[in-house]
Amino acid sequence: MSNPSILILAGDGIGPEVMDEVKKIITWYGDKRGLAFDVTEDLVGGAAYDAHGVPLTDETMAKAQEVDAVMLGAVGGPKYDVLDFSVKPERGLLRLRKEMDLFANLRPAQCFDALADFSSLKKDLVAGLDIMIVRELTSGVYFGQPRGIFEENGERVGLNTQRYTESEIARVARSAFELAKRRDNRVTSVEKANVMESGILWREVVTAIRDAEYPEIELSHMYADNCAMQLVRRPKQFDVILTDNLFGDILSDCAAMLTGSLGMLPSASLGAPMANGRPKAMYEPVHGSAPDIAGQGKANPIACILSFAMALRYSFDQGDEATRLEKAVEKVLADGVRTADLMGPEGGTPVSTTEMGAKILAAL
Amino acid sequence: MSNPSILILAGDGIGPEVMDEVKKIITWYGDKRGLAFDVTEDLVGGAAYDAHGVPLTDETMAKAQEVDAVMLGAVGGPKYDVLDFSVKPERGLLRLRKEMDLFANLRPAQCFDALADFSSLKKDLVAGLDIMIVRELTSGVYFGQPRGIFEENGERVGLNTQRYTESEIARVARSAFELAKRRDNRVTSVEKANVMESGILWREVVTAIRDAEYPEIELSHMYADNCAMQLVRRPKQFDVILTDNLFGDILSDCAAMLTGSLGMLPSASLGAPMANGRPKAMYEPVHGSAPDIAGQGKANPIACILSFAMALRYSFDQGDEATRLEKAVEKVLADGVRTADLMGPEGGTPVSTTEMGAKILAAL
Ligand SMILES: CC(C)[C@H](C(=O)O)[C@@H](O)C(=O)O
Ligand SMILES: CC(C)[C@H](C(=O)O)[C@@H](O)C(=O)O
Repeated sequence: MSNPSILILAGDGIGPEVMDEVKKIITWYGDKRGLAFDVTEDLVGGAAYDAHGVPLTDETMAKAQEVDAVMLGAVGGPKYDVLDFSVKPERGLLRLRKEMDLFANLRPAQCFDALADFSSLKKDLVAGLDIMIVRELTSGVYFGQPRGIFEENGERVGLNTQRYTESEIARVARSAFELAKRRDNRVTSVEKANVMESGILWREVVTAIRDAEYPEIELSHMYADNCAMQLVRRPKQFDVILTDNLFGDILSDCAAMLTGSLGMLPSASLGAPMANGRPKAMYEPVHGSAPDIAGQGKANPIACILSFAMALRYSFDQGDEATRLEKAVEKVLADGVRTADLMGPEGGTPVSTTEMGAKILAAL
Repeated sequence: MSNPSILILAGDGIGPEVMDEVKKIITWYGDKRGLAFDVTEDLVGGAAYDAHGVPLTDETMAKAQEVDAVMLGAVGGPKYDVLDFSVKPERGLLRLRKEMDLFANLRPAQCFDALADFSSLKKDLVAGLDIMIVRELTSGVYFGQPRGIFEENGERVGLNTQRYTESEIARVARSAFELAKRRDNRVTSVEKANVMESGILWREVVTAIRDAEYPEIELSHMYADNCAMQLVRRPKQFDVILTDNLFGDILSDCAAMLTGSLGMLPSASLGAPMANGRPKAMYEPVHGSAPDIAGQGKANPIACILSFAMALRYSFDQGDEATRLEKAVEKVLADGVRTADLMGPEGGTPVSTTEMGAKILAAL
């Protein structure tokens, strides 16, 4: 039997630097734990545009469809701001999400004990925070047709379409309920049903799935504006938050920032099971390409490393190994090892990207 | 010459209670400062539904069009959750906004010194906070056509349309730039131009207006997800935030919660100038109808009172009197007078809604 396959798309900015540390960890798992992976690498985002004039080639897209998991770094940078919408780095990422049909984006917002002081929020409000946001990722206003800029009555009109079918809502709802079963059995579904019909349908379908298939899960509904407030007011009230593509984009970033350490947060984007039973999957850190610090060895590789831990758990059925990797990260943090983004006002000497990677390897 | 006219729509929940205190203040301005207003009252939201079967009658709508300013309390409550979308309390509010064409929603997020401890954020991050959010209020996905729930390929589809014309963007941009001129000359315009064409047009039009008409204003652009993060991370970086209807809904509530005292925050919704030069205008507290505490004399009337201060400033050209009222509120807070929502962990005895109103009157 062949090894499970991983396609690495390191992308732009700090993407390649943080991914280098992940590669070492992948190698370690092959050498030390008998978990060998077939790894290939390719380009995405601005890097792909520079080489090929598009942010993702058809060949790379085809490879992504074939592997067991894609590891993505980050895309974008000021250099590409001038590009046309259709070839901007983000389009590469959105194409991967859409064509792989990665409908469930899992974004844990966890506050690491060693870092609770980093939050802008008072420590007792965030210490121990552990929210899982499940964001729909392949539909809604990100992809709805019609869209574009049109001429009408002598002026231009910018148009996008928010659009959800029952089946699109149902499948991501199931992902959220399944996750809740392994956590605290509570799901908060978020929309704007008071002003949007798409939100009314969302609420109806989510409720119906709970009633029919997950009666043991406690389901509540919240408007998106209130959810933003509640995240700031009392974030620990949440277990799993289920929401659409656009609300999920905003609320998951808000929740991420509550933890105070964006450089720590991984994500998984999952689709339907493939022939081998594994879900289509892409893993990426929540942080962006951070062009301002790229190439300086300052970036924190932890978010990308924890994204690989999610890959171990969700793609490769290696929950114990995922936990091992997460524990190694916690140990290194508890030992006081810090990249520049994790330095508090008390100061100290930050370690570099590669030093952080080496410490985590050593802790494994 | 007749007195300026005010239509009071107290609405549901705590709306009538907090509005009672505003009425006393309006009377005080007539008696003591020679600023007499012609005040009429009517129903909106659930209260209007109970009486007339609709959340806003045509007669009330017509009155709102004729007065110099509408003072609104709050709408909604669990009793009305079962109602059809078309007659929900919120529809009354949305009809007022739309038919009065109140395109610029001004939502100050200010942190009162006496209350900085109430924020979930660390005190130094919010003390002195003073952001003005300008939210477009009459277009976007709240009102775009087509909308609804349709049958398609044997399943239902929920659909809404995000839609902005150049002129809709231009007029609210001007409102934001005008406000910035009287503040710190900085505007952050927020959209998702990386994924939505409506955001691309938004960015273009806002930039063009700045270049042509407000070259002295410092304009920056930010994606909505990043804005949510930055609000949590370092809220004092902002002066004026300009954004669309849906992003504004979420971000202004997030910003409001940063201040820690939602019961303190007013809002103004302004339209085009009427024949008498005054803008079409509606003023309302940011908080909702709070059905859980309605009728108990616990509600904080300050947000509604400060909304009247905004009316003095923006509708009646009485900036000095607005400041007088705001100072009275600050004085009462500095004296330690607190409604239940402003009680800290150290405890104490809260004052009632009417006591708070009386203290502010006394301070005037
Ligand atoms: C880069 C961008 C297109 C993307 C999004 O808006 O989805 C990002 O913000 C994210 O959340 O992954
Ligand atoms: C009550 C509701 C319709 C409204 C909105 O979504 O605009 C409210 O949240 C607000 O922000 O004024």
